[in-house]
Amino acid sequence: MDTPIRLLIHGASGRMGQALLRLAAAEPARWRVVAAVTGRAPAQRVVDGVPFFAAAELGGVPAFDAAVDFSQPDGLEPLLALCRARRALLVSGTTGLAPAQHGAIAAAATEIPVLWASNFSVGVAVLAELVERAARALPGWDCDIVEAHHVHKKDAPSGTALSLGAAAEAGGARPRYASLRAGDIVGEHLVQLAGQGERLELVHRATDRDIFARGALDAAARLAGRPPGLYTMRGLLFGEG
Amino acid sequence: MDTPIRLLIHGASGRMGQALLRLAAAEPARWRVVAAVTGRAPAQRVVDGVPFFAAAELGGVPAFDAAVDFSQPDGLEPLLALCRARRALLVSGTTGLAPAQHGAIAAAATEIPVLWASNFSVGVAVLAELVERAARALPGWDCDIVEAHHVHKKDAPSGTALSLGAAAEAGGARPRYASLRAGDIVGEHLVQLAGQGERLELVHRATDRDIFARGALDAAARLAGRPPGLYTMRGLLFGEG
Amino acid sequence: MDTPIRLLIHGASGRMGQALLRLAAAEPARWRVVAAVTGRAPAQRVVDGVPFFAAAELGGVPAFDAAVDFSQPDGLEPLLALCRARRALLVSGTTGLAPAQHGAIAAAATEIPVLWASNFSVGVAVLAELVERAARALPGWDCDIVEAHHVHKKDAPSGTALSLGAAAEAGGARPRYASLRAGDIVGEHLVQLAGQGERLELVHRATDRDIFARGALDAAARLAGRPPGLYTMRGLLFGEG
Amino acid sequence: MDTPIRLLIHGASGRMGQALLRLAAAEPARWRVVAAVTGRAPAQRVVDGVPFFAAAELGGVPAFDAAVDFSQPDGLEPLLALCRARRALLVSGTTGLAPAQHGAIAAAATEIPVLWASNFSVGVAVLAELVERAARALPGWDCDIVEAHHVHKKDAPSGTALSLGAAAEAGGARPRYASLRAGDIVGEHLVQLAGQGERLELVHRATDRDIFARGALDAAARLAGRPPGLYTMRGLLFGEG
Repeated sequence: MDTPIRLLIHGASGRMGQALLRLAAAEPARWRVVAAVTGRAPAQRVVDGVPFFAAAELGGVPAFDAAVDFSQPDGLEPLLALCRARRALLVSGTTGLAPAQHGAIAAAATEIPVLWASNFSVGVAVLAELVERAARALPGWDCDIVEAHHVHKKDAPSGTALSLGAAAEAGGARPRYASLRAGDIVGEHLVQLAGQGERLELVHRATDRDIFARGALDAAARLAGRPPGLYTMRGLLFGEG
Repeated sequence: MDTPIRLLIHGASGRMGQALLRLAAAEPARWRVVAAVTGRAPAQRVVDGVPFFAAAELGGVPAFDAAVDFSQPDGLEPLLALCRARRALLVSGTTGLAPAQHGAIAAAATEIPVLWASNFSVGVAVLAELVERAARALPGWDCDIVEAHHVHKKDAPSGTALSLGAAAEAGGARPRYASLRAGDIVGEHLVQLAGQGERLELVHRATDRDIFARGALDAAARLAGRPPGLYTMRGLLFGEG
Repeated sequence: MDTPIRLLIHGASGRMGQALLRLAAAEPARWRVVAAVTGRAPAQRVVDGVPFFAAAELGGVPAFDAAVDFSQPDGLEPLLALCRARRALLVSGTTGLAPAQHGAIAAAATEIPVLWASNFSVGVAVLAELVERAARALPGWDCDIVEAHHVHKKDAPSGTALSLGAAAEAGGARPRYASLRAGDIVGEHLVQLAGQGERLELVHRATDRDIFARGALDAAARLAGRPPGLYTMRGLLFGEG
Repeated sequence: MDTPIRLLIHGASGRMGQALLRLAAAEPARWRVVAAVTGRAPAQRVVDGVPFFAAAELGGVPAFDAAVDFSQPDGLEPLLALCRARRALLVSGTTGLAPAQHGAIAAAATEIPVLWASNFSVGVAVLAELVERAARALPGWDCDIVEAHHVHKKDAPSGTALSLGAAAEAGGARPRYASLRAGDIVGEHLVQLAGQGERLELVHRATDRDIFARGALDAAARLAGRPPGLYTMRGLLFGEG
């Protein structure tokens, strides 16, 4: 890799934004954060060499190659417009988007590479691929999805469990769900496929929340140089996107 | 063991009864089945050397040391009376008993050794003991019980899951339950205790239904020579009964 | 399925042969066993309506569509010759073959459909496919394979563990192996792929030895009507064979 | 709890020492660190309100109730002498001690409460208790211990696996060991007990290294006010020490 990729971190004050800043700083040969954008005016203009901008100042950020966005739905459209204007790729994990906003993402994807995902774990993306293939090869097997998360997680089943269930359904299975909320579990998902006399148990365990920020950065690196389009984690990993 | 224990198998035509007959026949130095009792008149009077009797003929069975009963609730009282009259011990796994029938069992236990259980797996009895001890040592940890059984099982959570939950509650935990019904799973139970940064997962897997019949026979062997009383699997195993 | 497939069971007196006979008899609309071949002269000529033949009488068996073979290496060549002469497909799980015998199988596959496998579990075949795909998508992740079997199994790692390892290696991983020998475990295989902060655990559990006989019959059904060739379980399941 | 326990942290510059300082600072109503002792002269005399001392200055530390020690073997004797002189309890996780040093610990335990352990996870201590009880109740069952740790761990089996094995042996089992080194796994231990047709799997998963420092602080709190003696984690948890 000759030159570091120039990054814009959108949502820089959030938990994901902070992780992105830390991980990018740890690999200066790979990443250079040229702009960290926060909702309100930043307390400091430059932190550890990274220039900070308020959302209202978005138009004034320097040139960048890739935007990574974990923020609020209302910041999406300005960011999409900026990426289109700058011909920069976009990786977004912002949740709670309205259907029309997903439409705006698809529209932008005609001009720039865009990847939106609810879970940036590489392992979860691989698991989804495996689940669909297994379900397709094992018609009639019973499919159960069990997920476990920390006690502060409110939604159940988890979005990841539902996306694994969608993969199982795409393979022909009819998944059922169970959810555990216990301790400080980062996130675990089991997809069980049970036949007569045998069973597959496909499990993903996350033990460190950094995997989500790391996966988003990896996605940005994989998208660099690609043609415009709407990409997915599975597509990037399995060459179908 | 000098002399084989003389067994009466009550409910001999059921799945458990058949397994008891088969397992007892495989260890002739340990067991001699002197009477196999079925609800209706038996098709054959003697099968593989074992004399069969209808329930209505119960009074005419020869001398026996132990009765093992997996049958219907309405056969319980005559069997209890017979065991008291013969000074024989009783092991029963008949389910669906009315509270008054459990009272009748307790009354009989003043004269003969009696063990009633909903699950005769030795491993499950050990697990219940472990769960109570772990829960007591880990106050404040989250407790989840996940059980998996074949798709034909109708009740959920399983009786065994509920008894494990009772053990957890006796230790101070407040268990939650999840149930999977898949394939032909014989029976699996997970008790998870989750704290901050660490977790215990205590699992029992049954892969062969014979464990229930074998556990009932083992219980009868352990009860032989004991004083009258109401025994439990855990008590027999851990010396508290 | 209009007409039952006419089966020749080769190695009919072995454990697998007995299971094949039992499972085929349970689905008369799907299978008709027209010949059961045993090494020595059979004790009875017809058992439950199935004609038995000694290996020396192989040439005299009636017309059949598919041979399923779980026997000894020295019976392979005559069986291959018979299948070629009768234009019948062959499914073989006979182990301990010499390299030249695998060559003979490949030669026969120019004329008839042939499938040889060391493990006929459908779930294991699916697992091998998943392992290779996951390993390819996750370069640099650590790969461990843990297998558990009953205490009477002598070889370690199991042949299935080695074939899963070969799948992992085909995907770029370098697997390590651990083996447990405990109780009467039918067969369990875990393939773990571990990265930073996350992990995949891909598990197959066999609880009933019938899955191997059932998988061999399924393979025969899938091969019926196919062109000559050397097939694999994975190929049949995933359309690459 | 009326008054915070006055703590001396011995080995304050190590990873465990840093975690102890951080966790104690987070609970000021429970803990007050009155001295942090490092091998060499500390860079700063006071950090976040905690006074630092070099090992050579050990005699000059202020009054304290409990010493928590994760340091080097050569610092043990001076620390033991100090604790005896000050009538303070000692919790130590320093490894690599010579047998004579364990003897010195036992001698000090005639005057002060002392707890030395190789693993301060509460969950591991509970697991050891469960393993011994299960092994005792299940004679003849096969016992396997599988542990998994990050790739940088060099010793195998882990000290914790060996201590679980010792617990199994105390219950009559003969454990075998398998070790996985993969990714950044903090530490996982499985003790499997397998009989005929059923199995127990007793698992501990650590996901956060803080559990060891937290367990050491908890042990100090449990020891406060106890009579002199040599304590163990299991004894503190199960009332047998």
